[in-house]
Amino acid sequence: MPSSAESLANLPLREDLVGLAPYGAPQLDVPILLNVNENTHGVPEDVHAAIVQAVEDASRGLHRYPDREFTELRKNLAAYLGHGLTADQLWAGNGSNEVLQQILQAFGGPGRTALGFPPTYSMYPLLSSGTGTRYITAEREGDYAMTPEGTARAVRDSGANIVFLCSPNNPTGTALDLEVIEAAYAAGEDARAIIIVDEAYGEFTQEGTASALSLLPGRPRLLVSRTMSKAFALAGARIGYLAAAPEVADALRLVRLPYHLSAITQATANAALTHAATLLSNVEAIKVQRDRIVRELGQLGLTPAPSDANFVFFSGLEDPRLVWEGLLEAGVLIRDVGIPGSLRVTAGTEQETTAFLTALRRILGPAGGSAPQTAGS
Amino acid sequence: MPSSAESLANLPLREDLVGLAPYGAPQLDVPILLNVNENTHGVPEDVHAAIVQAVEDASRGLHRYPDREFTELRKNLAAYLGHGLTADQLWAGNGSNEVLQQILQAFGGPGRTALGFPPTYSMYPLLSSGTGTRYITAEREGDYAMTPEGTARAVRDSGANIVFLCSPNNPTGTALDLEVIEAAYAAGEDARAIIIVDEAYGEFTQEGTASALSLLPGRPRLLVSRTMSKAFALAGARIGYLAAAPEVADALRLVRLPYHLSAITQATANAALTHAATLLSNVEAIKVQRDRIVRELGQLGLTPAPSDANFVFFSGLEDPRLVWEGLLEAGVLIRDVGIPGSLRVTAGTEQETTAFLTALRRILGPAGGSAPQTAGS
Repeated sequence: MPSSAESLANLPLREDLVGLAPYGAPQLDVPILLNVNENTHGVPEDVHAAIVQAVEDASRGLHRYPDREFTELRKNLAAYLGHGLTADQLWAGNGSNEVLQQILQAFGGPGRTALGFPPTYSMYPLLSSGTGTRYITAEREGDYAMTPEGTARAVRDSGANIVFLCSPNNPTGTALDLEVIEAAYAAGEDARAIIIVDEAYGEFTQEGTASALSLLPGRPRLLVSRTMSKAFALAGARIGYLAAAPEVADALRLVRLPYHLSAITQATANAALTHAATLLSNVEAIKVQRDRIVRELGQLGLTPAPSDANFVFFSGLEDPRLVWEGLLEAGVLIRDVGIPGSLRVTAGTEQETTAFLTALRRILGPAGGSAPQTAGS
Repeated sequence: MPSSAESLANLPLREDLVGLAPYGAPQLDVPILLNVNENTHGVPEDVHAAIVQAVEDASRGLHRYPDREFTELRKNLAAYLGHGLTADQLWAGNGSNEVLQQILQAFGGPGRTALGFPPTYSMYPLLSSGTGTRYITAEREGDYAMTPEGTARAVRDSGANIVFLCSPNNPTGTALDLEVIEAAYAAGEDARAIIIVDEAYGEFTQEGTASALSLLPGRPRLLVSRTMSKAFALAGARIGYLAAAPEVADALRLVRLPYHLSAITQATANAALTHAATLLSNVEAIKVQRDRIVRELGQLGLTPAPSDANFVFFSGLEDPRLVWEGLLEAGVLIRDVGIPGSLRVTAGTEQETTAFLTALRRILGPAGGSAPQTAGS
């Protein structure tokens, strides 16, 4: 929040930044935080202990620059992802935002365009603008769906250099069929388009939903990004990563800041990856609550989107702002993503989910989503 | 090192990146590493313990996004720097490279130019290119010196939007007189140029050399960047920072990746800052070795530049490559920065300095720098 907007106006800011406000969900102090899709189960005790031990070891050599190639981390990430991936196909950054920014620096920039399908992750236009890449959009079909035909047409017609496919999509929660990704890749052949599948929520998909990782062989322009912020409960550690052909990592080496991943970040990620099994058991618990939210919101007369993520997007609200405020008063913070009639809620622990559903039920009243809503008292 | 240059050529890389090689000094396994200006004294035991404790505390909440405003870190940095600075004048990033990149994103970019005075920090042109900013250069006077008049003329004539002043300069080691910075600032008035003084080595200056921090009051376009990689012995932790008018931080908020500083990075930096006194006592020991290197290189008939940093740049070598190789064979890695007749060496511990000087004396032979040099055997 600019404290000195007038003074800022006197600085020689880049023209396209003038008048903008910084990105960011409000960081409020509320008992139940279900607004930014964190893993509210926290870091399990044994993972915490492993992280502290790894940092203790790594910080002995903290006066030296870190391994610029984060060799061990790339090996561990490849082993975690499976799909026959090898370390030279992996890349990582300080959050998947940094990885996406590096992709835009390498393959986008002035004179090039990136294509997104809103509503989708709100950082895509900001990252594009920050790298001088023109951001253009194409429409989804009804219910925020994407079909192979419609997607291929948009990729072809736009001539985009970079295509963002968010799957599961944030904020709507639904994963894409692999056919959509295959169609986008094929349609981008002429423009040699880079196709990014953002699988930040990839560990939360419904049984039987395949990852775009399975499409990597033979597709050197396909990039699959992931994060340790969600399933791995490490939002505070800022670790995002990417799987692709080895030459994509070579391209990113040309634009990454040297030594961009600290020795402590590498140690933290490595420790967490050796405890992936523990962390993924919490993922199962979160999916149970996620499915419960979808079910109970439906019973309340609302329209939740099918979710493959750790959150649920729901529509059918007459006045989402009033509902959001009522929940906040009840100590539950969720997210207003600015889509008419809709809100988004993170699937937390069983207790948090109960608190959210109880408060929502009270706010909506006996008639549910179709009745006039008040903010509660 | 691209493992697959041919495959890379098939990717739609941004045109100006085609054919480039990634930045980076070789990471070799040698007993004595004096090549990248690290603080070879290491992290003192009590600082290490404080860092581990801070990380243990911070990692309890690692499933939550970090404080986007790194409030405590900015307070601690302001207190450390003094000069009447307040937390709202401070900003930080994952290494000062990230801070410089953010400055270029906010104030540079396509259609804008950045001015540097080579030989200087080799990342300035790379960071400029990575943000679409045109990088231009101006000449120094003899002996790599910069005068107020010459600097003002270069700033004025170039019409640059951003001016990089590295003080102490890397790789030559000498600090700028404040008059040079004042002249650059005044000369940039018409173009409303951003003047960056990069004080990465600011803690190592000679007695009586003033920091550009003292010039900040009344100069909203003056930015002073620093790092914890050198004096604070935290190269592996990647923490750079900046002091400037509060509206500069507001500008950087528009381009920074949200939550760019991990909770662990913030905790590490905070712990180290509370032990600044311990860390700065090693700085004094390093300065003693630095001055010793300058003195003894002079006795060897070489020409060391006056150094305000933790390294010494020296000229007068007939074949620097042979000397560099001879030192490497003796287990001492220093830096060939590509300037004819010259090399750069980090001031390490007393033992490391002795090893470097002994090996160099042997390589140069009894006649010193003016004699034909062999690589030793």
